[in-house]
Amino acid sequence: ILNSKNRVLSGSRTSASVKAVRVAQPSRRNAVHVAAAVALDFDTKVFNKELAKLADTEEYIVRGGRDKYPLLKDAFKGIKKIGVIGWGSQAPAQAQNLRDSISDAGLDITVAIGLRSDSPSWAEAEACNFSKAKGTLGEVFDVIADSDLVVLLISDGAQAKLYPRVLAAMKPGATLGLSHGFLLGVMRNDGVDFRKDINVVLVAPKGMGPSVRRLYEQGKSVNGAGINCSFAIHQDATGNAADVAIGWAIAVGAPFAFPTTLESEYKSDIYGERCVLLGAVHGIVEALFRRYTRQGMSDEEAFKQSVECITGPVSRTISTKGMLAVYESFDAEGKKIFEQAYSLSYKPALDICFEIYEDVASGNEIRSVVQAVSRFDRFPMGKIDQTYMWKVGQRVRAQRDESKIPLNPFTAGVYVAIMMATVEVLREKGHPFSEICNESIIEAVDSLNPYMHARGVAFMVDNCSYTARLGSRKWAPRFDYIIEQQAFVAVDAGTPTDAEVMREFLAHPVHRALETCSSMRPSVDISVGGDSSSVGVGAGAARTEFRSTAAKV
Amino acid sequence: ILNSKNRVLSGSRTSASVKAVRVAQPSRRNAVHVAAAVALDFDTKVFNKELAKLADTEEYIVRGGRDKYPLLKDAFKGIKKIGVIGWGSQAPAQAQNLRDSISDAGLDITVAIGLRSDSPSWAEAEACNFSKAKGTLGEVFDVIADSDLVVLLISDGAQAKLYPRVLAAMKPGATLGLSHGFLLGVMRNDGVDFRKDINVVLVAPKGMGPSVRRLYEQGKSVNGAGINCSFAIHQDATGNAADVAIGWAIAVGAPFAFPTTLESEYKSDIYGERCVLLGAVHGIVEALFRRYTRQGMSDEEAFKQSVECITGPVSRTISTKGMLAVYESFDAEGKKIFEQAYSLSYKPALDICFEIYEDVASGNEIRSVVQAVSRFDRFPMGKIDQTYMWKVGQRVRAQRDESKIPLNPFTAGVYVAIMMATVEVLREKGHPFSEICNESIIEAVDSLNPYMHARGVAFMVDNCSYTARLGSRKWAPRFDYIIEQQAFVAVDAGTPTDAEVMREFLAHPVHRALETCSSMRPSVDISVGGDSSSVGVGAGAARTEFRSTAAKV
Repeated sequence: ILNSKNRVLSGSRTSASVKAVRVAQPSRRNAVHVAAAVALDFDTKVFNKELAKLADTEEYIVRGGRDKYPLLKDAFKGIKKIGVIGWGSQAPAQAQNLRDSISDAGLDITVAIGLRSDSPSWAEAEACNFSKAKGTLGEVFDVIADSDLVVLLISDGAQAKLYPRVLAAMKPGATLGLSHGFLLGVMRNDGVDFRKDINVVLVAPKGMGPSVRRLYEQGKSVNGAGINCSFAIHQDATGNAADVAIGWAIAVGAPFAFPTTLESEYKSDIYGERCVLLGAVHGIVEALFRRYTRQGMSDEEAFKQSVECITGPVSRTISTKGMLAVYESFDAEGKKIFEQAYSLSYKPALDICFEIYEDVASGNEIRSVVQAVSRFDRFPMGKIDQTYMWKVGQRVRAQRDESKIPLNPFTAGVYVAIMMATVEVLREKGHPFSEICNESIIEAVDSLNPYMHARGVAFMVDNCSYTARLGSRKWAPRFDYIIEQQAFVAVDAGTPTDAEVMREFLAHPVHRALETCSSMRPSVDISVGGDSSSVGVGAGAARTEFRSTAAKV
Repeated sequence: ILNSKNRVLSGSRTSASVKAVRVAQPSRRNAVHVAAAVALDFDTKVFNKELAKLADTEEYIVRGGRDKYPLLKDAFKGIKKIGVIGWGSQAPAQAQNLRDSISDAGLDITVAIGLRSDSPSWAEAEACNFSKAKGTLGEVFDVIADSDLVVLLISDGAQAKLYPRVLAAMKPGATLGLSHGFLLGVMRNDGVDFRKDINVVLVAPKGMGPSVRRLYEQGKSVNGAGINCSFAIHQDATGNAADVAIGWAIAVGAPFAFPTTLESEYKSDIYGERCVLLGAVHGIVEALFRRYTRQGMSDEEAFKQSVECITGPVSRTISTKGMLAVYESFDAEGKKIFEQAYSLSYKPALDICFEIYEDVASGNEIRSVVQAVSRFDRFPMGKIDQTYMWKVGQRVRAQRDESKIPLNPFTAGVYVAIMMATVEVLREKGHPFSEICNESIIEAVDSLNPYMHARGVAFMVDNCSYTARLGSRKWAPRFDYIIEQQAFVAVDAGTPTDAEVMREFLAHPVHRALETCSSMRPSVDISVGGDSSSVGVGAGAARTEFRSTAAKV
């Protein structure tokens, strides 16, 4: 199976020699079928497929970076027009990145935006230099009918409603590009399938739109800075669907791209954002802030010891050195506190993570999202950052000295526990490590937490998709309650550290898998402007408010 | 349609004359089909069917009470054995009430308990005087095979797993009795139907098991004290299924019984317990307690102004005089505070209530419950009352002076808002008022809140079914967050009362409907022992812990 271009990549602690290919461990229980890691092979005629060793499994990946742009010509052969449909979290970022990369590669491909003719986003797209006159901005179905690659980035709710018309409008032999397997989940709930004469591929950046654009911009001077993407070939009608997908991933700036399936992607993605990426981190900082103020800390100090600690030093450490490095950075006393907080938070967090995974896998979460979107006219999503705690946060940020943000061992223990719980459920359910690392760890520390660091919880959550925003609102309170009711109660009752849970943490294979991923991470950290800046703020409806806040200053 | 026995019952504000029968208002949007009120006719040859006027609709009901016991002979004609299967929240209560009523009626019908042979509840059932030797205690499927009426009260999760065997074991012509439409929801998700040669009926007491027993016991000296029941005739194979069902309702002590369908019952029931009955009331008292302590109240005072206020004076007032009476009990200043709290809490509460209803109606909640139950071995439900706030509550209860519990207008406004939101969604979805009043108001104030009043939140929530306990854990945090993020933020920003919302509250037809229900309410209030008593504590597994706590003292 290994072709001549393959080479082996492995973490520093693991052997570099090519071993017999092993599949991921079967999940212990309630396994939902997801293709095992290395079974996710793909046929590229253009790119260099590498075999990466992630802990005890091996997976194929493709490296991106600006030096790969010359390959886009072959990858996009036959594509004259890429239609990017929508203007939400992902569309402005991906459309601009694609346009820039294609221009840098010297290709004659038009990147056009497709919008409803009455869309309020028309002006925003024009401000980003897409125009009707130049043929780079048009009505949704006109653009779809005219495109060889249709990158469908309208909201999940809109996809659920419009997919029959979208599919009907496409040219035979064209490629439908998704950035989320959500639509497959919807179509399964509806009992229907894609038409057979088109390619269906997925490229899912493991970060929200504004970070996809921001890191790409930063990366113009640093080869390959950007957001990792997973990709999937769901239908290959033309025989080169994989190269179209990988080309797309590289053109939006992926440092590396790894294969998945639509099913594996939507399960891990909808799950991940409900867990550590958005929902869980929001819930636990609310619980920690309350706890610390009740213990007598000032509001400002409590905010620093909870939110600032996670979005600052904890995230930075994990981003570059991994989770074990957080633990190892404490002295003996700090380690003890971490151990107790970690080991008593892990199981309650795992409980909720399983519940979320199974609610996603059963279609419940997708059904709920579709129902919620249909209620938006009457019940739009409310703001989540106007409460007392987040007002305190605004004051704390205004006076922040980045070098003085505390590294609190209790906070770190709770946070790493919810991250490990997020990881472990994906592992038991059979997801490949590349997906696990990106969906549970890298996206958190490299894409999302920096946004909460910059301007608080809503700036992180509400820069994401409706599905993510709804899911975060739904599950944050659950993590808050279970951590307070189970973990904090146990800590306060003097329950000792669970040594077995700590042993499992220290020996978990994800640490080695993450090392491999980190070895491919460019050296650029995302930089996002604070409350008085517009740096890193995306374009598009969901971000309007943040933009205008920034514009005021 | 009106038979000779019908007579009209109406609230004091409404005309007593028989008007043209009108169906409930069609729901405004997203209507889920539920049979309109008076369409729920039923054919009783034994009981007195009355036409009750509930606001602008008319519904048939049947009055219960000890004076109806002589009718049980005809209602239970052909029934030699009633098998009550299980020993959870409902089974100990219903089995003992049935046995007592049948004995008082002088009937020769055996009431037997069916349990798994390895069930830990065997000894508890024996302690309640059921015995293998006397033929009143046996193995589940033996009892089912031998019974003419099978009252299936095993947990919802167990029903989902065992229903094929239960149905297969039944005698042709026997009656399957459910106390929850849950099984219909499960069977719909599974795409199967009941066998056609049995009756399938439902009698659903609108209160948890321990309250069903407790009020029945109290009611022995007061005719008809007990818990109202809804009933449904899903399949009538023998032609007298309605009389079996109504007889059962009266024998468990219903002051009045009203018809519904299995679908309408499971939707309103699973929904109601997630809203004001359990989940919402838990969530908002957590939010209120935090708010009051942050405003500078002592912990004890904050607990009194939140929990004690709701479970004490607010519940008592609603129970006997309705929701408007709570509002009217305040002076001008108090009314203002109530109005602001009510009007700003109502819409956020309505938002979550719609979400819950549609998650129930789509089958999501049932699927989640079945999945959660299958994880119990690894993730049993944790305790919810060991947190700081509920420890404060224990101290407050120990020193309680019932006459000094404050009636806080802010707390009352928030609580009545979540109650009205619970009501309004059921109304828009087309449920009959008898069901709405019982499922949103009467069960809260007459059955459940008294348990929270006696010993805190877990004593209320964890005396209920798994489905209810899981649902309360799931939705309480959502109400907490949305009320804090939307309502409290609006209040603190000085948002004025929404006069339109208040007008709708004051004019809402539910107040008149509740008056009619209240006119049938016996004069007995439930009395439940406090932390050091065992009065009102049910038998059965879910209640073991409360019992032993009580036994210690």
